[in-house]
Amino acid sequence: ARIVTLPGDGVGPEVTDAAVAVLQAVAERSGHTFEFASHAIGGCAIDATGEPLPAATLEACKKADAVFLGAVGGPKWSDPQAKVRPEQGLLALRAGLGVFANLRPLQVHPALAALSPLKNEKLKNVDVLFVRELTGGAYFGAKTRTTDTATDECKYTVAEVERVTRRAFELARERRQHVTSVDKANVLETSRLWRSTVTRVAAEYPDVKLEHQLVDSMAMLLLTQPARYDVIVTENLFGDILTDEAAALAGSLGLLPSASLGEGKVGLYEPIHGSAPDIAGKNVANPLGAILSAALLLRHSLELEIEATTIEAAVAHVLNYGPHSRDIGGTASTSEMRDAVIAALD
Amino acid sequence: ARIVTLPGDGVGPEVTDAAVAVLQAVAERSGHTFEFASHAIGGCAIDATGEPLPAATLEACKKADAVFLGAVGGPKWSDPQAKVRPEQGLLALRAGLGVFANLRPLQVHPALAALSPLKNEKLKNVDVLFVRELTGGAYFGAKTRTTDTATDECKYTVAEVERVTRRAFELARERRQHVTSVDKANVLETSRLWRSTVTRVAAEYPDVKLEHQLVDSMAMLLLTQPARYDVIVTENLFGDILTDEAAALAGSLGLLPSASLGEGKVGLYEPIHGSAPDIAGKNVANPLGAILSAALLLRHSLELEIEATTIEAAVAHVLNYGPHSRDIGGTASTSEMRDAVIAALD
Ligand SMILES: CC(C)[C@H](C(=O)O)[C@@H](O)C(=O)O
Ligand SMILES: CC(C)[C@H](C(=O)O)[C@@H](O)C(=O)O
Repeated sequence: ARIVTLPGDGVGPEVTDAAVAVLQAVAERSGHTFEFASHAIGGCAIDATGEPLPAATLEACKKADAVFLGAVGGPKWSDPQAKVRPEQGLLALRAGLGVFANLRPLQVHPALAALSPLKNEKLKNVDVLFVRELTGGAYFGAKTRTTDTATDECKYTVAEVERVTRRAFELARERRQHVTSVDKANVLETSRLWRSTVTRVAAEYPDVKLEHQLVDSMAMLLLTQPARYDVIVTENLFGDILTDEAAALAGSLGLLPSASLGEGKVGLYEPIHGSAPDIAGKNVANPLGAILSAALLLRHSLELEIEATTIEAAVAHVLNYGPHSRDIGGTASTSEMRDAVIAALD
Repeated sequence: ARIVTLPGDGVGPEVTDAAVAVLQAVAERSGHTFEFASHAIGGCAIDATGEPLPAATLEACKKADAVFLGAVGGPKWSDPQAKVRPEQGLLALRAGLGVFANLRPLQVHPALAALSPLKNEKLKNVDVLFVRELTGGAYFGAKTRTTDTATDECKYTVAEVERVTRRAFELARERRQHVTSVDKANVLETSRLWRSTVTRVAAEYPDVKLEHQLVDSMAMLLLTQPARYDVIVTENLFGDILTDEAAALAGSLGLLPSASLGEGKVGLYEPIHGSAPDIAGKNVANPLGAILSAALLLRHSLELEIEATTIEAAVAHVLNYGPHSRDIGGTASTSEMRDAVIAALD
């Protein structure tokens, strides 16, 4: 299988290296062959080519079986008024690959409950899968700007809502058969289209229970009753906010993975943490989010479920018995964490 | 002073009655005279007149010194596809009164820390004042809908951002001199206008420290470092989501107040909880959010700071020594809570 890696900026290259090392270790043990090719995206691509997503990068990604991304951005390129920004590369990649469903699983490992801001009793049985719409909404709508005024258009079509809703219901079937759809239907027209479309699609899945929540209520319920939720499906911007809120529950951003899927097989996999410029290049970033993203890559793009589960079990072993990186209360380096996961594969 | 009350739907009338009783008790003790006039809004207004904000209601509010609102909405009127909805009355009232700055203070009373989903050590010294922009953004932008597509336009002008920013900085001066402005400047054009305007206005307040956060990071930081923040200023929709998230920290929505202010003196005061139809008419709703909103009314619209502080001290006394309503772990009724606050005024 051909895997394109996009290490990107900040700690991106370090955690990508760790994920690739784990994938290679899995390849050796399973007899599969993974070919890796690295391309530029984000700030480093702007420096090299002037563009945050060079055409050659997008081409290579489209031909690959899966794409692994580290992180993009950093203070060097972070002037919000700049014409060219690293984030544009990421948004163009998501759109270019058509990966409209962003999966962000959240579980709270018992060994990390002490690091969570939430009380321990709230964290019991938390097992949520966010399905965030990733190629529509205000992220990709028309924008205008004059000296006095700025606008962003949030737009959704029925077809866009249908496809991400179907993905959410299919995933819920394999889980606890419960979908919570989040919108702001008491105020937004796009949310009313969202709600009526989700309600209609839900009828195709009579075995799955559907519940609607307003985004403001959901922001509260994630804290007061997190264990109640199974699959949460929502539009792009609400998903951005709610998944980061939920990530805080896990005790550290460093260990949360994500998968972005479209109609085709090629998926985009990335840890949800950012480029963390303050610790870049120091070999201290937690690579577990990247490594768990590699597991999702095996599961969703390469259909290697056993190998994916093997990685997840190895990560759980490291969380239980150490070593732990700084963000999760230890002193282990990025490479020590990587090596510990590889050792736990056997 | 003339106070218009808009009891609204669900538990709205019960908590409004409690707040009015407390205001009357304060009037007796202080020698001030408050005249109350009640008008219809929301679902009950739709039932009576077909409109969620009858012209007579808006007229009366505009002539008043302050407006007190209970809550609007309920299952009877909650079909999101309905042409006329209770929430429209609230939005039209906010726009009609020009109350562009929605103040939502958050403190976690020690007696309620056990009810919060957050660990106790996180709750220490939490004292945040949200200033949410209330009359712009996607709430009031153009909307379109066809069979296939829906759009919402989010729009901000420089003047709209300036006035709410100034309000936030002025409030920060009286507090801990720290403003955090929340936007999504890496993606949205309105956020880039927001950020550059806030940055420019901040220069007028060299004694106040300004910090920018992206809305997704802020959703996380509210949980991991809530005590770090003083005044948080943000646009309408982000404010809706973040203030509800923050409200979860307090242990119960039932005791959080809000004040919505414009350029003029007439302000709109309401508890942040909704109409809670499941407990409406049962005399069990917690009236403290309404009573604390009445205190904000005295402070911001009537300039009765001592009387406002007297109510807040009485509420703190009730939280410390009881009685407590159901939502905060007790069995006291709405009227028992009201009477306990009145008794604690002396
Ligand atoms: C970097 C940014 C554009 C991005 C987003 O908002 O989608 C990030 O926050 C994320 O959630 O992946
Ligand atoms: C009822 C609804 C329209 C309202 C809002 O979204 O502003 C409410 O959630 C609030 O925060 O006051």
